[in-house]
Amino acid sequence: MDRPIKGPLNGHSGNGKKHVIVPVDGAFSLDFVHRLRFTSNVFDTNNPVLPQVLAPCGDSPGRLVVFVDQGVADNWPGLAERIEEFISQALDWMTLAAPVQVVCGGEQSKNDWSVYESVLRTIHEAAICRHSYVLAIGGGAMLDVLGFAAATAHRGVRLVRLPTTTLAQGDAGIGVKNGINSFGKKNFIGTFAVPWAVINDKQFLTTLSDRDWRCGLSEAVKVALLKDPMFLDQIESSCPQLNNRDPAALCPIVKRSAELHLQHIVTSGDPFELKGARPLDFGHWSAHKIEQLTDFRIKHGEAVAIGLAIDVLYSALAGRLVASDAERIVGLLEDLGFDLYDQVLEDPALFDGLEEFREHLGGQLTITLLDGIGRPIDVHEINRERMSDAISHLATIAAQKRS
Amino acid sequence: MDRPIKGPLNGHSGNGKKHVIVPVDGAFSLDFVHRLRFTSNVFDTNNPVLPQVLAPCGDSPGRLVVFVDQGVADNWPGLAERIEEFISQALDWMTLAAPVQVVCGGEQSKNDWSVYESVLRTIHEAAICRHSYVLAIGGGAMLDVLGFAAATAHRGVRLVRLPTTTLAQGDAGIGVKNGINSFGKKNFIGTFAVPWAVINDKQFLTTLSDRDWRCGLSEAVKVALLKDPMFLDQIESSCPQLNNRDPAALCPIVKRSAELHLQHIVTSGDPFELKGARPLDFGHWSAHKIEQLTDFRIKHGEAVAIGLAIDVLYSALAGRLVASDAERIVGLLEDLGFDLYDQVLEDPALFDGLEEFREHLGGQLTITLLDGIGRPIDVHEINRERMSDAISHLATIAAQKRS
Repeated sequence: MDRPIKGPLNGHSGNGKKHVIVPVDGAFSLDFVHRLRFTSNVFDTNNPVLPQVLAPCGDSPGRLVVFVDQGVADNWPGLAERIEEFISQALDWMTLAAPVQVVCGGEQSKNDWSVYESVLRTIHEAAICRHSYVLAIGGGAMLDVLGFAAATAHRGVRLVRLPTTTLAQGDAGIGVKNGINSFGKKNFIGTFAVPWAVINDKQFLTTLSDRDWRCGLSEAVKVALLKDPMFLDQIESSCPQLNNRDPAALCPIVKRSAELHLQHIVTSGDPFELKGARPLDFGHWSAHKIEQLTDFRIKHGEAVAIGLAIDVLYSALAGRLVASDAERIVGLLEDLGFDLYDQVLEDPALFDGLEEFREHLGGQLTITLLDGIGRPIDVHEINRERMSDAISHLATIAAQKRS
Repeated sequence: MDRPIKGPLNGHSGNGKKHVIVPVDGAFSLDFVHRLRFTSNVFDTNNPVLPQVLAPCGDSPGRLVVFVDQGVADNWPGLAERIEEFISQALDWMTLAAPVQVVCGGEQSKNDWSVYESVLRTIHEAAICRHSYVLAIGGGAMLDVLGFAAATAHRGVRLVRLPTTTLAQGDAGIGVKNGINSFGKKNFIGTFAVPWAVINDKQFLTTLSDRDWRCGLSEAVKVALLKDPMFLDQIESSCPQLNNRDPAALCPIVKRSAELHLQHIVTSGDPFELKGARPLDFGHWSAHKIEQLTDFRIKHGEAVAIGLAIDVLYSALAGRLVASDAERIVGLLEDLGFDLYDQVLEDPALFDGLEEFREHLGGQLTITLLDGIGRPIDVHEINRERMSDAISHLATIAAQKRS
């Protein structure tokens, strides 16, 4: 795993000048494991998934704290008591180090320091150590702020995520990122950190609002477009049942989305995005800006649907994607119930999203487009006029659909 | 580098119960390089070290911001102008994206959020991206808070550290940690992050106060005790010249200390301290508490000298280290000019440092002691009465020395 540092030290003159520089390059690697589990009724005392993931490991003092998204607590009365009972019965080697904490969720939880600081305070007061656990139960935004707190308290305590929305179970909750918003920039502050485990419990999906039920589907379409054309067929053929809120149709789609996401993290060779591209952020340059320009009135998954439609239409105008494929994708997003028109599309500030996207990743601009379904391509230049045309085209199509 | 995730997915019944859990474990590794350079007069336009470390790399937009510790700025009038001139002449492919920033240093810079937030704001306003650079010039505390900001802005921008004290050049500035203090706990909030490069410029050591000149020597003694008995001999034989502030004696000691520190990071197998020990923190359980209990009146390196003396005397009382070695080490620390007595040694709250040390690392208590010089040993129990005896013994020795 480790390689010795270069040595003994080599002195050499730089540029033939008098300066002597002694270089020492130390190279090392780190190994990570990302544990993803799919289950139902995780807090049923007969369900072994949490006991397996939180198994006693020798020197662990076995402490944990639990945070629940306000939205989840509202939908699941008695959840805190059920969790406390579960821990006392099925995790009897663990100490619940503080009462179950209900915290504000949604994008507003990422817009200032208050939730981050209150989670840090709980971790401090509950004497959570690096071998203890933080359980976070909630949507993607709440998991982002909880993840940032868990990643920075004691330079990182163990985080177990229980994502509760389609978007979090299929996408945001699977990733190795966390963050909060600052200076008007989404996720300006955060880290890359691998969670101890992610547990997708499909029961949580049953109480979602229609909007939250739908939100994860745009990310599923995204990952299908990038990696798996057959998955796109599956989403298309499930469309009526999905609109009917049929869990039997939804769960395989969320699961496949999560699997493809994890596979990307594990096999991409750049899980911490140190290089020049972030292919999983297809459609996201405008999505992030749409969220911010609308003060988060448009949710992330809804903005991603619009962002995908824009970049798909741009891909077609650029002569990359055949027009019928572009129409098929935009049609699917509409059939899934996404409203692809919003007046924010007419705001020229939308284009600032390109530079903000570049800056966040670093280096030259890299935008993912499509050469075909399942055939992503990174480009480094975007023609503004063509992008304006793509946006106008989307506005026309979406307005027709509305009327 | 990457291994595929376990698959296809295996459904299995947990515990023979009805619950079906689908486990997916994704394993991956990440490679890191830690670049350490030793030089003199880094901002001389003929010095190639910064141009080499910040060489243009294809897609890099070549932006940087520079932060200088107030203490360094005070000692080096005109430094900001010199840096700006250097960049325009010797780094002409780089854009200095903001005027050189002078920030508060010392432990107080870590005690609240203000320096962290102001650095984040500069990084935001200067449009620093993940492929841009933050140059931090200062002591260990300032590098800690700068490192935390650089590690969390955009989930990590490139940090080049120019440590300016003996302690930072030999120890704190070499490590892969950053952090700020919170809730009365030193480094409660921070991350592990590998710097882009660390450049030790020995010129910065010439203007240090006597206290800061001395502070790094306790960390040098520490790493010698852990890893290199011959290095301890070297420190001992250099003692008169060190007290005479002879750079020719100091520089090899700081350099060896830095090398041993980097070697540990690269070869220990646990640079991010995910396991049960942190051997480089020998003597630090009490040192961190001493700093905090004295409101940082005692500096880190001074507290480490006291902490080393305590754990060395405890090692002897526990029958591990021969008494003559313990006396030799305590004598060396005194000869180096460290005052090993302070009334904080009589504060029973000192013992809280043991539990805080355990909690920060996690799992069971692990304290490094010595079985001999160069022979560290991890123990999991500390006898309080014996520790009280070690502290009393130190108080007696140190009081004799004083009188």
